[in-house]
Amino acid sequence: MELGPPGGSGPAEPGPRLRGLRGADAAASASSLSRFGAEAGCRASAVAAVLPAGGSGERMGVPTPKQFCPILERPLISYTLQALERVSWIKDIIVAVTRENMETMKGIIQRYQHKRISLVEAGVTRHRSIFNGLKALAEDQPNCRLSKPEVVIIHDAVRPFVEEDVLLKVVTAAQEHGASGAIRPLVSTVISPSADSCLDHSLERARYRASEMPQAFLFDVIYDAYQQCSDYDLEFGTECLHLALKYSHIKAKLVEGSPDLWKVTYKRDLYAAESIIKERISQKVCVVMDTKEDEEHVGHCLEEMLKTELNHVKVTSGQDLQQIILEQCYNFVCVNVMTSDFEETQRLLNMVEESNLSILYPVVVISVHFLDYESVPLGQKMEKVMQIREFAKEAKKRNILLSGLLIYFPQEEQKLRESLRQGTTIISALIKERNSGLIGQLLVA
Amino acid sequence: MELGPPGGSGPAEPGPRLRGLRGADAAASASSLSRFGAEAGCRASAVAAVLPAGGSGERMGVPTPKQFCPILERPLISYTLQALERVSWIKDIIVAVTRENMETMKGIIQRYQHKRISLVEAGVTRHRSIFNGLKALAEDQPNCRLSKPEVVIIHDAVRPFVEEDVLLKVVTAAQEHGASGAIRPLVSTVISPSADSCLDHSLERARYRASEMPQAFLFDVIYDAYQQCSDYDLEFGTECLHLALKYSHIKAKLVEGSPDLWKVTYKRDLYAAESIIKERISQKVCVVMDTKEDEEHVGHCLEEMLKTELNHVKVTSGQDLQQIILEQCYNFVCVNVMTSDFEETQRLLNMVEESNLSILYPVVVISVHFLDYESVPLGQKMEKVMQIREFAKEAKKRNILLSGLLIYFPQEEQKLRESLRQGTTIISALIKERNSGLIGQLLVA
Repeated sequence: MELGPPGGSGPAEPGPRLRGLRGADAAASASSLSRFGAEAGCRASAVAAVLPAGGSGERMGVPTPKQFCPILERPLISYTLQALERVSWIKDIIVAVTRENMETMKGIIQRYQHKRISLVEAGVTRHRSIFNGLKALAEDQPNCRLSKPEVVIIHDAVRPFVEEDVLLKVVTAAQEHGASGAIRPLVSTVISPSADSCLDHSLERARYRASEMPQAFLFDVIYDAYQQCSDYDLEFGTECLHLALKYSHIKAKLVEGSPDLWKVTYKRDLYAAESIIKERISQKVCVVMDTKEDEEHVGHCLEEMLKTELNHVKVTSGQDLQQIILEQCYNFVCVNVMTSDFEETQRLLNMVEESNLSILYPVVVISVHFLDYESVPLGQKMEKVMQIREFAKEAKKRNILLSGLLIYFPQEEQKLRESLRQGTTIISALIKERNSGLIGQLLVA
Repeated sequence: MELGPPGGSGPAEPGPRLRGLRGADAAASASSLSRFGAEAGCRASAVAAVLPAGGSGERMGVPTPKQFCPILERPLISYTLQALERVSWIKDIIVAVTRENMETMKGIIQRYQHKRISLVEAGVTRHRSIFNGLKALAEDQPNCRLSKPEVVIIHDAVRPFVEEDVLLKVVTAAQEHGASGAIRPLVSTVISPSADSCLDHSLERARYRASEMPQAFLFDVIYDAYQQCSDYDLEFGTECLHLALKYSHIKAKLVEGSPDLWKVTYKRDLYAAESIIKERISQKVCVVMDTKEDEEHVGHCLEEMLKTELNHVKVTSGQDLQQIILEQCYNFVCVNVMTSDFEETQRLLNMVEESNLSILYPVVVISVHFLDYESVPLGQKMEKVMQIREFAKEAKKRNILLSGLLIYFPQEEQKLRESLRQGTTIISALIKERNSGLIGQLLVA
């Protein structure tokens, strides 16, 4: 079973569609509010995003707030920031975190090299956190390095799979309508209970939608709404679209979102997020071969078999490795047909280390060696290749998961295909599971 | 991060609370409808369950309907059946499947040895499938081996984590109120769109609930409702509680359910379900030791370390193995301190095979051996232990995942603890990942 296109892992280009967006302010947009920024002499960036991240994670039933829960050892919020950062036309990203988590958040930004992020202090409720984020963007803040955007996106720190596509849709709709939000069909019927916990009535499912994130607003529409709204709204409200309607009289345009927009709410959602991320980064594998494929039958066979298990298999003899690393491939199989030493593997490890590829995701490297039982005793070969344990310990420190694979190489074609097939199964398992508990092992096919 | 008690994997006992339930019919229940069955001379079983399973899985975006999607190679619906079967006071379970899937479903029932299941043909909508299930339970069907229950539970085939606790709550509430259903807080705000896809209004989240499954009804209440309801209801309706209200004028009692009741709807839910199941069956591990723990320091150390990684570690020298297998432990570590052969491991494999333990879940068996580098060369030992590959191939056919672990055994205490700690990491990874691609491997700690 396959997910859609990996999308989430590749870099996003702004593209020509954005031209209109940047010029909207100058072009005397339909909204009378949008002149406000221009009059104040503020250099309006087109789009900023506000992420409330002050939640306590109580629904999760764990002490760590859910936005800081680790997925492949990296906090969830870092994936969401990555998804927003990929979109070059989002100029500023404002994250609202509680005072207690301010240092944690700074550490995350530094460690994962996030850019264009500003931190503000979260309020005690979601609405108050968003309001704090908006205040930081408004031009009336003293000593503010941020500039007031034309449009502000509001997103959740715990929806890591947001794509540029839907961000663009809500921003464009916000420019036209003043406000916009992503929606999804309801999964369950919604009912209204009576005071004694009996069914009062059920809603007709087809007439309603779940309001999801992201949402986007002309900055002044939502900022005005927050400035007017009551303490009750700030304490008990949940819905920004509602505030825009109630105080700025703007009927938000609703945009159908994909299932990917779901919010990490329960523990099971963390499991799902981890599996989705693992699947996405397991799609591409680069096979580094110390020989040309047509020269050496065995390498070619292995490549063919890998293609049946993994989506994108790219074979190289090493020259274009730098380019492949740049294309964000997180899996490398180093096939040593001609030699039994680790030179190739070490060269590859060095390259991966230098590339900073493993800052965001654990990178899997598998060093494949061949073994002819008849000419070399298994034990002797193994002892040699066991050095891999030491290499693996070092590589782990840089988030690279190294293991070895010894493939039995019999003369008989049928048997050879059988051991290559088993090798393929093992390679595929190592890439898909990405289990750091098994690094440094020498597996045998 | 831990889930709650494993619950889902252990057998459920009926318990004294059920006494009242079975006698309810005889005790002239408050509902006048409940006399209907008794008058017709039908031996009313207390409780039956109906599972509509005719869905096409279109939301999943995969060709296999979601109830048949595999989790650890077993179809999702089998987990749901297992959850209902564990509850001994549910006398009959009626599953509605489409004609095309009838043979598949029969195969699942046979392979996983499900009991008390009857199949009926699904209708084209969920309501029609449920109605077909109810008809099979009604006493007016010719040649029916089923008897009309007092209470019928309606559940979804794609909610595998339902617990006895909530089933009991809805059944008890249905006896008192005529109808009952599980509810959950809303995760997202619900909004009503206008015809032009703009926000019309949003609902106050706190005043509404998501209606989930299971639901329970006095049989006659829901059967009467289905007999009266319109084609429109049967085609476009989704909510049984609504039918009970509209046609039988019963206001269902709403019962707060746990987050576990969620419905497998999207691919991410399959991932989540697999992770939850893996976590549940990884909690208990049985360590079979060929020596008494206090006699042999190394075994004792390993046990202590395993306890830091896994919740329930039970150590045995083999006598009470049969009992441990009966208690549904799915993970075995066979520690061979005194010998380097496979006799113990083979004895264990035979026992697991004979127990049928691996019918429902893949069972992990790890054969642990120790290696003193100084006295025996690594290669020599390894070649001996490599026989494990052949054993593993055979075991896999019976859903047992066998691997070997060679732990370095130096004289120095500090170093010994280090290699035991690494062994523990590997054991824990093998149990938690349960990856069949790595069977037959000899790992080294």
